[in-house]
Amino acid sequence: MRISQLAETTGVPVATIKYYLREGLLPEGERTSATQAQYGDDHVRRIRLVRALVGVGGLSVATARSVLEQLDAEHDSVAEMLGVAQGAVTPTAVDGLDVGRARALVDGWGWTIDPGSHDVLAALEVAISGLEAAGFDLPDGRLDGYAEVMATVAEAEIAGIPVDSVDAAVQYVVLGTVLVEPLLLALRRLAQQDASWRRFGV
Amino acid sequence: MRISQLAETTGVPVATIKYYLREGLLPEGERTSATQAQYGDDHVRRIRLVRALVGVGGLSVATARSVLEQLDAEHDSVAEMLGVAQGAVTPTAVDGLDVGRARALVDGWGWTIDPGSHDVLAALEVAISGLEAAGFDLPDGRLDGYAEVMATVAEAEIAGIPVDSVDAAVQYVVLGTVLVEPLLLALRRLAQQDASWRRFGV
Repeated sequence: MRISQLAETTGVPVATIKYYLREGLLPEGERTSATQAQYGDDHVRRIRLVRALVGVGGLSVATARSVLEQLDAEHDSVAEMLGVAQGAVTPTAVDGLDVGRARALVDGWGWTIDPGSHDVLAALEVAISGLEAAGFDLPDGRLDGYAEVMATVAEAEIAGIPVDSVDAAVQYVVLGTVLVEPLLLALRRLAQQDASWRRFGV
Repeated sequence: MRISQLAETTGVPVATIKYYLREGLLPEGERTSATQAQYGDDHVRRIRLVRALVGVGGLSVATARSVLEQLDAEHDSVAEMLGVAQGAVTPTAVDGLDVGRARALVDGWGWTIDPGSHDVLAALEVAISGLEAAGFDLPDGRLDGYAEVMATVAEAEIAGIPVDSVDAAVQYVVLGTVLVEPLLLALRRLAQQDASWRRFGV
């Protein structure tokens, strides 16, 4: 199909598609003349994916490109895939940030984590420091409770990784990391409303 | 203390403090001359809070201002506080977005939600549409599982609302909504690494 049809099929304007092409988010079509190219179903799927990453996932164009590169790359192990997926969406830690407390917490929960995941440990450290800086003390046991709940979530997620196809596994891990976050946050907010209603009746 | 001491105490540069003052994130000090003002411990606490909201919380200056206004405002009920806290950090839904599916899910879980929380329902709808658009099918029962887990989280959070002080309750609800989100996401990523290690051993 031509770019105008691609725009019609996906509901994404031609100008936006051209922007995705320039930014390397979408592979070039098959050139049929100096000014025209043909696009296929792969392009339709890729455009929908880009929209999801940039829109719902809230990623920047640069981060989306990095996630897409991971989807297209070869991976040796689930741990490696997970590492690169998490790396793509976790901000790089400030140089020299002490993650000793985060490390001690993770050790206390008995979790084994990737030795290279300094940035994810740093994200935990930063989140806890942020609560402290704001003068918000988590009630006793709350942090352990959050960790327990997230361990349950992660257990089901990792158990569900498709093992019959590398492509499917990569897609599951990368998109599951990026796109499930907004889902969990929306569910938490709605569940809080229900819990508030049941407790306070207003 | 003078603004230079305020900068030293908080570790925030004078230029940034002046920016917070201009943007209304920080109340004016008590003016002692045409060019000088005195600041107190309230200013120190407020600057730490602003840093947490804008830094860890990842809020824009405009959203941080709106959250701070909620902290400073009078509230009649927990539901109202929760609604405004969630409203401040939930993007406004696109006009005319159909939230029928999100509504049906919430009804199916037996959750009672604030009739005015269209935007939070929309966030759920957008998150689910994003997964679909990316071609990521959640395994059967996964969505219900996420909802169940978040109901457990929310139950503990709402049960922990301090009832002896309105100020403490407002602080708990507003900051708990905004600042716990990055904590949960960091924990999920670390828990995934542990689950992956236990399942795949690499």
